Amino acid sequence: MEINLISDTVTKPTPEMLQAMFNAKVGDDVFKQDPTVNAFEKMVADLFGMEAALFFPTGTMANQTAIKLNTNPGDQIICDKWSHIHLYESGGASANSGVNFNLLDGNRGMITAAQVKEGINDPEFYHVPLSKMVGIENTTNKGGGACYEIEELQKIKQVCVDHNLKYHLDGARLWNAMIAKKQQPKQFGQLFDTISVCFSKGLGAPIGSVLLSDAETMHRALRIRKIFGGNLRQSGYLAAAGIYALQNNINRLEEDHRRAKELGTQLEQCSWVAVVEPVETNIVIFSPQPHIEDKIVIEKLKQKGISISIMSKGKLRIVTHLDYRQVMHEYVLETLEKINF
Amino acid sequence: MEINLISDTVTKPTPEMLQAMFNAKVGDDVFKQDPTVNAFEKMVADLFGMEAALFFPTGTMANQTAIKLNTNPGDQIICDKWSHIHLYESGGASANSGVNFNLLDGNRGMITAAQVKEGINDPEFYHVPLSKMVGIENTTNKGGGACYEIEELQKIKQVCVDHNLKYHLDGARLWNAMIAKKQQPKQFGQLFDTISVCFSKGLGAPIGSVLLSDAETMHRALRIRKIFGGNLRQSGYLAAAGIYALQNNINRLEEDHRRAKELGTQLEQCSWVAVVEPVETNIVIFSPQPHIEDKIVIEKLKQKGISISIMSKGKLRIVTHLDYRQVMHEYVLETLEKINF
Amino acid sequence: MEINLISDTVTKPTPEMLQAMFNAKVGDDVFKQDPTVNAFEKMVADLFGMEAALFFPTGTMANQTAIKLNTNPGDQIICDKWSHIHLYESGGASANSGVNFNLLDGNRGMITAAQVKEGINDPEFYHVPLSKMVGIENTTNKGGGACYEIEELQKIKQVCVDHNLKYHLDGARLWNAMIAKKQQPKQFGQLFDTISVCFSKGLGAPIGSVLLSDAETMHRALRIRKIFGGNLRQSGYLAAAGIYALQNNINRLEEDHRRAKELGTQLEQCSWVAVVEPVETNIVIFSPQPHIEDKIVIEKLKQKGISISIMSKGKLRIVTHLDYRQVMHEYVLETLEKINF
Amino acid sequence: MEINLISDTVTKPTPEMLQAMFNAKVGDDVFKQDPTVNAFEKMVADLFGMEAALFFPTGTMANQTAIKLNTNPGDQIICDKWSHIHLYESGGASANSGVNFNLLDGNRGMITAAQVKEGINDPEFYHVPLSKMVGIENTTNKGGGACYEIEELQKIKQVCVDHNLKYHLDGARLWNAMIAKKQQPKQFGQLFDTISVCFSKGLGAPIGSVLLSDAETMHRALRIRKIFGGNLRQSGYLAAAGIYALQNNINRLEEDHRRAKELGTQLEQCSWVAVVEPVETNIVIFSPQPHIEDKIVIEKLKQKGISISIMSKGKLRIVTHLDYRQVMHEYVLETLEKINF
Repeated sequence: MEINLISDTVTKPTPEMLQAMFNAKVGDDVFKQDPTVNAFEKMVADLFGMEAALFFPTGTMANQTAIKLNTNPGDQIICDKWSHIHLYESGGASANSGVNFNLLDGNRGMITAAQVKEGINDPEFYHVPLSKMVGIENTTNKGGGACYEIEELQKIKQVCVDHNLKYHLDGARLWNAMIAKKQQPKQFGQLFDTISVCFSKGLGAPIGSVLLSDAETMHRALRIRKIFGGNLRQSGYLAAAGIYALQNNINRLEEDHRRAKELGTQLEQCSWVAVVEPVETNIVIFSPQPHIEDKIVIEKLKQKGISISIMSKGKLRIVTHLDYRQVMHEYVLETLEKINF
Repeated sequence: MEINLISDTVTKPTPEMLQAMFNAKVGDDVFKQDPTVNAFEKMVADLFGMEAALFFPTGTMANQTAIKLNTNPGDQIICDKWSHIHLYESGGASANSGVNFNLLDGNRGMITAAQVKEGINDPEFYHVPLSKMVGIENTTNKGGGACYEIEELQKIKQVCVDHNLKYHLDGARLWNAMIAKKQQPKQFGQLFDTISVCFSKGLGAPIGSVLLSDAETMHRALRIRKIFGGNLRQSGYLAAAGIYALQNNINRLEEDHRRAKELGTQLEQCSWVAVVEPVETNIVIFSPQPHIEDKIVIEKLKQKGISISIMSKGKLRIVTHLDYRQVMHEYVLETLEKINF
Repeated sequence: MEINLISDTVTKPTPEMLQAMFNAKVGDDVFKQDPTVNAFEKMVADLFGMEAALFFPTGTMANQTAIKLNTNPGDQIICDKWSHIHLYESGGASANSGVNFNLLDGNRGMITAAQVKEGINDPEFYHVPLSKMVGIENTTNKGGGACYEIEELQKIKQVCVDHNLKYHLDGARLWNAMIAKKQQPKQFGQLFDTISVCFSKGLGAPIGSVLLSDAETMHRALRIRKIFGGNLRQSGYLAAAGIYALQNNINRLEEDHRRAKELGTQLEQCSWVAVVEPVETNIVIFSPQPHIEDKIVIEKLKQKGISISIMSKGKLRIVTHLDYRQVMHEYVLETLEKINF
Repeated sequence: MEINLISDTVTKPTPEMLQAMFNAKVGDDVFKQDPTVNAFEKMVADLFGMEAALFFPTGTMANQTAIKLNTNPGDQIICDKWSHIHLYESGGASANSGVNFNLLDGNRGMITAAQVKEGINDPEFYHVPLSKMVGIENTTNKGGGACYEIEELQKIKQVCVDHNLKYHLDGARLWNAMIAKKQQPKQFGQLFDTISVCFSKGLGAPIGSVLLSDAETMHRALRIRKIFGGNLRQSGYLAAAGIYALQNNINRLEEDHRRAKELGTQLEQCSWVAVVEPVETNIVIFSPQPHIEDKIVIEKLKQKGISISIMSKGKLRIVTHLDYRQVMHEYVLETLEKINF
């Protein structure tokens, strides 16, 4: 048995999703003539109560486009030190948009309104970069799937309004947050200037993210997507997977969360594990005892057919997902219980 | 009957191609674990005799990546005034790579070695931009599908070698050129530093281009593709369409060329047509008589179910392709013969 | 006798100007505490009837700042094919601001309102760059010191207003234009969004240009000047030279123009000269007979102590200026009359 | 008595320096024909034992040019969290060069070889930015004028060599470091790829910095300086001040350091002062007791004719310099002793 817990990006379409893709009506989306893409974009925009949506080949491109929409070269983005847009987009924010970061020392990847306020540069003191955008990631990736309370996000919104800052949500795993916290898409749609949501992680589509904003902003986004080279042709096949995912795969995220929590509980009982971070969604981050090297753990689990990954030195990551079925789960629990270092 | 002659990008997969797509074995290409993508990239690299290939969601992203690989900000690209990389990529070359153009006045989009040599700036005279790359488009889009002789491309190569310039081929319609001129992929692979080829135009795949170069350059390309947000997940579905196209749809481009030539011949006989440019591949560019407005022609043909497009003021464009079948062709020929203004 | 007619940038301060510099009260301009710089900026702003001015170490930096103020990355500038901002700023517009050019085929470096209108891209057709700024150079450098009629500049302004384009004037030699055409600074101040004027060419200051615009724009310019590294400390010494130049060296440009015209007249009578372009200000561009190489002419004049430069193949340039005195002029006229090839 | 202790940038040339400036022989440095600039550049290069030097209008432009020389867009710079290139160049590193930062948590602005090594990203893991340059600031500005031991700089050099990183020294106050630590310019010249040194701070010149590197790199720097708009015309007047400063104003930095230390000692004895950071050179950073607001201290000293500045919340900064004479110093010491809050 090959069990891949490295990321929820590894999921493959189910036969039903594949059938939906196969049956999609398509057109040339560069001319905005793909009916499935158009329907998908409208569906997501409506879900969040936002004016307009645009389909992107990746979440990275959706985020990079949001940054370009919200900033000018030289501007500063305020976000947590662990943000994906800073750490894991290959330096794209500076390369594509010429912006830099004020990295806040948040809690498990989450920042507070007070921290944001403290982090804003005086716009009249022109020697320092101009603060222009606040970036939120929800759930946090490096923070172990932690999710924000809507109240804190509202307070941050107020700081943004008071200081003329744009407000972007990297919602790569927002579906997980909404399931875990029983929140609704429109609660986020009301707060943010731009939101990216991903369909190729927990929701199981093979490719694709969507960026949301008001109509004027998304009109400009079309041009930026083209500049990055993201204007696909018959992308309705991919959008069809997104539509299927929206209609079928959201509620089942609860299963991923339950299994992640069970894995966390199991790990807490293992003598070779030093720390297990709180499990809120589908990510489990844990640290082996100091004398046990990360590589050894990964290697030994690999021999049992279980692939997991390193988050950072001394921190290992497990991610549950659609393709991680109950039978696998039981085997992993059992293996973790038995294994020793 | 709806006949779309606006572009060869509007083609949709045939049932056989669709079958190949949805039977594809896929994986997460961000980890380079998609077997179909890996096989496709190797297949294209081998075909051109180049060391490495990378799959891209669009030809624009493949071209933009090549520009980033071949230049530094401030550098100058030498190419024809009608080049796609200058005219139709939304200013991406300057936005993404900070480069500018020395636009040569070529013949139907094709430039000569003598023109290139004349267009190189003295690298010691630092007030002018540094010449760094020559960009070739083959076939030319705005030039009406014109194709280069391999001898001229070899001469330009020599100028590049002598002056330390990179040499890029935008091969969006290179398949058409090779069919029309009976040239082989390896002839191009030997000449250019980077080549982009497209699978979603004449070859009929829904999405995707491939960039080719040496192994070290393509290793760097992976990072640039990520910066643009082009690192797809389970893209094997798309690569499978490319493999199918390579195996089945190249030789049939002859049909597109034959039909384009027949359309050209018909247009030459129409009294309302002033000029028909030479037809070499699957593009026909013609000018109505000066007193007839472009819009009127487009409108009237549209009423007959035939969509064509404007290339530039006074120049109309017809593009034949996989979905333009013989029965449509006969109807279009007949309509062109009968119509009047 | 060493006579340098290569450029009017080679002038050195007169003893009187040097005295003014020496006596300047200075402060730290980074804190805007240099009284001489502040006075100079106000003086220039008032002269043009514009809200605010900022001192720059070079005209290139003033132009580059204007481009950054007026555009976003990917945007297109419309200007003459011979514009300094395209040809002679080392690719700065693309490197610094990520913009590209639509180069119009003007007359001696001057473009018309009709050409500008024709050159604007449809903003809804997002595949082409967004037209955002019109750049005027007056007098034209490569155009041989040609100057615009104010009426044409007004017509171009109207096109800018109608199409939401910014309007920039590269006034490196605007003082010459105003003297030649008997125009007033306020006529330009009323038309343009941004104007750069230079003090180290015909006006004889050693260093410095000034950028003009409305107060809000110039407030943003301070930050951009800092990003480029142009925020000098005790720059009052340089500003004092500018003040002296404004008060003393404008009207004497007539002498430079008279001498340039006399040189043009003399050259027309030389059998070894094929063409002399019309002389409007302080620049003379002429072409030797086709069989005489540019280098030979330059070399032979150099032996007589006269330095001139090549503008482009087959075109030589002479520039008159403050340090080119009457005695030198008579010698040059005589030499041109006698010399032969 | 007006005493400005805000920065050492506020110094004005002495009459002797001014005399040297206005006796300078000048030429057009854009054509590299200013003999004083050429002599100055050679003098500084020789002093550091480096191949080539280039004069810049500001230290910011010298640093920004070094960053552009040492990196490509998207790359990451490793430096202390308090670095001037990150904090106080208006976001120039990202705006001009598209780079981002890995900010290390150093000691008073100084980082260690161990920290640098830990901060290097795996170049094969292309999702994270590519580490490309280490930036050192010596003395540290925000760190209160702290200076590196040469041994630590050598160890960092070794890390750079091992990991293919460029090594830049922002030597805005390097003269102070060399005086305080009894180090020689050539010790730095041997270690770094690029060094910027400033002449308009402690050394008392009105304008100007110099960038140093090998000949090939500085050849490229000329073009970058032009792109930023930093190619001045008759800049020999400014270079002459630099030459004068080199010959006359280095050893006297000891006086600035002595006075700074005496101010530190005095402040330690003030009951209203909570902390005085170690004083190594000409900068004194101290914190008032928590209940005393920064603004109150600044205001009250201002009323006594003494201007000082805020470094960051709760931290005040005093900088001694050439124009801060002994009589002023005695007055300030006395005032600090008497004042109370």
